[in-house]
Amino acid sequence: MPHTHRLTPGQKIYLNFTPADGKKFHKNRDKAEKKFKKLRKEFRDLQARLYAENKHKLLLVFQAMDAGGKDGTIRAVTQGVNPQGVRVTSFKAPSTIERAHDFLWRVHMAVPAKGMIGIFNRSHYEDVLIVRVDNLVPESVWRPRYDHINNFEKMLTDSGTIILKFYLHISKEEQRERFQERIDLPEKNWKFSFEDLEKRKQWDDYMLAFEEMMQNTSTVYAPWYVIPSNQNWYRNLAITHVIVDTLRQLNPQFPPPEGDVSGVIVK
Amino acid sequence: MPHTHRLTPGQKIYLNFTPADGKKFHKNRDKAEKKFKKLRKEFRDLQARLYAENKHKLLLVFQAMDAGGKDGTIRAVTQGVNPQGVRVTSFKAPSTIERAHDFLWRVHMAVPAKGMIGIFNRSHYEDVLIVRVDNLVPESVWRPRYDHINNFEKMLTDSGTIILKFYLHISKEEQRERFQERIDLPEKNWKFSFEDLEKRKQWDDYMLAFEEMMQNTSTVYAPWYVIPSNQNWYRNLAITHVIVDTLRQLNPQFPPPEGDVSGVIVK
Repeated sequence: MPHTHRLTPGQKIYLNFTPADGKKFHKNRDKAEKKFKKLRKEFRDLQARLYAENKHKLLLVFQAMDAGGKDGTIRAVTQGVNPQGVRVTSFKAPSTIERAHDFLWRVHMAVPAKGMIGIFNRSHYEDVLIVRVDNLVPESVWRPRYDHINNFEKMLTDSGTIILKFYLHISKEEQRERFQERIDLPEKNWKFSFEDLEKRKQWDDYMLAFEEMMQNTSTVYAPWYVIPSNQNWYRNLAITHVIVDTLRQLNPQFPPPEGDVSGVIVK
Repeated sequence: MPHTHRLTPGQKIYLNFTPADGKKFHKNRDKAEKKFKKLRKEFRDLQARLYAENKHKLLLVFQAMDAGGKDGTIRAVTQGVNPQGVRVTSFKAPSTIERAHDFLWRVHMAVPAKGMIGIFNRSHYEDVLIVRVDNLVPESVWRPRYDHINNFEKMLTDSGTIILKFYLHISKEEQRERFQERIDLPEKNWKFSFEDLEKRKQWDDYMLAFEEMMQNTSTVYAPWYVIPSNQNWYRNLAITHVIVDTLRQLNPQFPPPEGDVSGVIVK
């Protein structure tokens, strides 16, 4: 069940025909929320051991359309996890100095160290998404990036990084409702930007870009998960389940003492 | 009450005569824990606004003797705060490349950006502590650092950073008990290091280094707080109270909408 939404390498996906509705996968919201909270508690315990063991690195990548729920997911899933072991990086439009380097330069600087969980709110995948849709670089530049990304992620994996990538899949109608709410509720006004409406017009171009991106970069070592995200409660459960299941298999342990401590008396 | 433990600029402090016992300041543990949880909830709300406003930066510095409770404090105080808005940096012994630069170089890279809370687990203050006690550089090098630090922190403050510095004050006897526990409880063995016992022998040298450091670097714009930390429950309450009181005064607000959104219909 935790890996229901995983894409196998090379798998073709049509987002229009892929359910964004979590109710298709879980009927009972109350039960889902209870299960989510239980899993999140387990996540906290596993994270404490991951950090203490100081051996593996976990990288979680989140991509979505605007209002897809990236911020909310990160907040909900990591709630209660020790911030000392988690580093969230939000990738915005690149700065002048970032643009003066290759597209993986700023990303590489943000990958997690041993024992750490790194979370990317947007990522190097923007460089085959917005860059493509808005024609910021020609296809001869962005298309080879699929390979560059796969090679980069393979290298990270070989050096002890576990990579999980989540596409938060919402329907176009769900995005409409969320935008409208940001307009109608004064306390949400600050989240709304007129630019969002411009980007909404490119919905179909983005769907195509996401589809090709995931088909080309879902690998055995760094798979994509297409998470039905119209309902936050299902989205949170599904993602936490994948993370916890991955950490369970990793089974991190508190390290052994550095020597024989029995009988030592502190003065 | 929140600023009881703040050092005024130039204030001389004798740690041997400064209570490490929180019970001297708060009689009732149950009440203290309730108040702490209430304040922590308020901290979460204030942090959400700080992040959304994207204007101020908050830097929290934690220093202490070994087993002083730095990790535990950071975990307890930030529990439930959105990790996206918090960045913890643990400063270890400097790497080759870090040692090849000035002592503030790696620190500067880790200061918080707008809207963020930066937390330092150890900091540039190690460069007037361990460096002094272990004679890693001569006094002619470490003593001028008090001024360098004050100037650096003034510059950060002038660019919108609020700086709060906490010394977690435990008694020598309390450290003994905590070390002994790490030896006696198998599940805590991994936290114990024989090096800890060597450093414990330098206790008095460290007290002197801490005293002079705080006397010279507690400023109006970046004050030191000497937090009685023998009891975790009092320590957590006292620190959270200082943070929350500071954020209350800052009073961050959700930003206004970028334009007139009334009547906008999303299609």
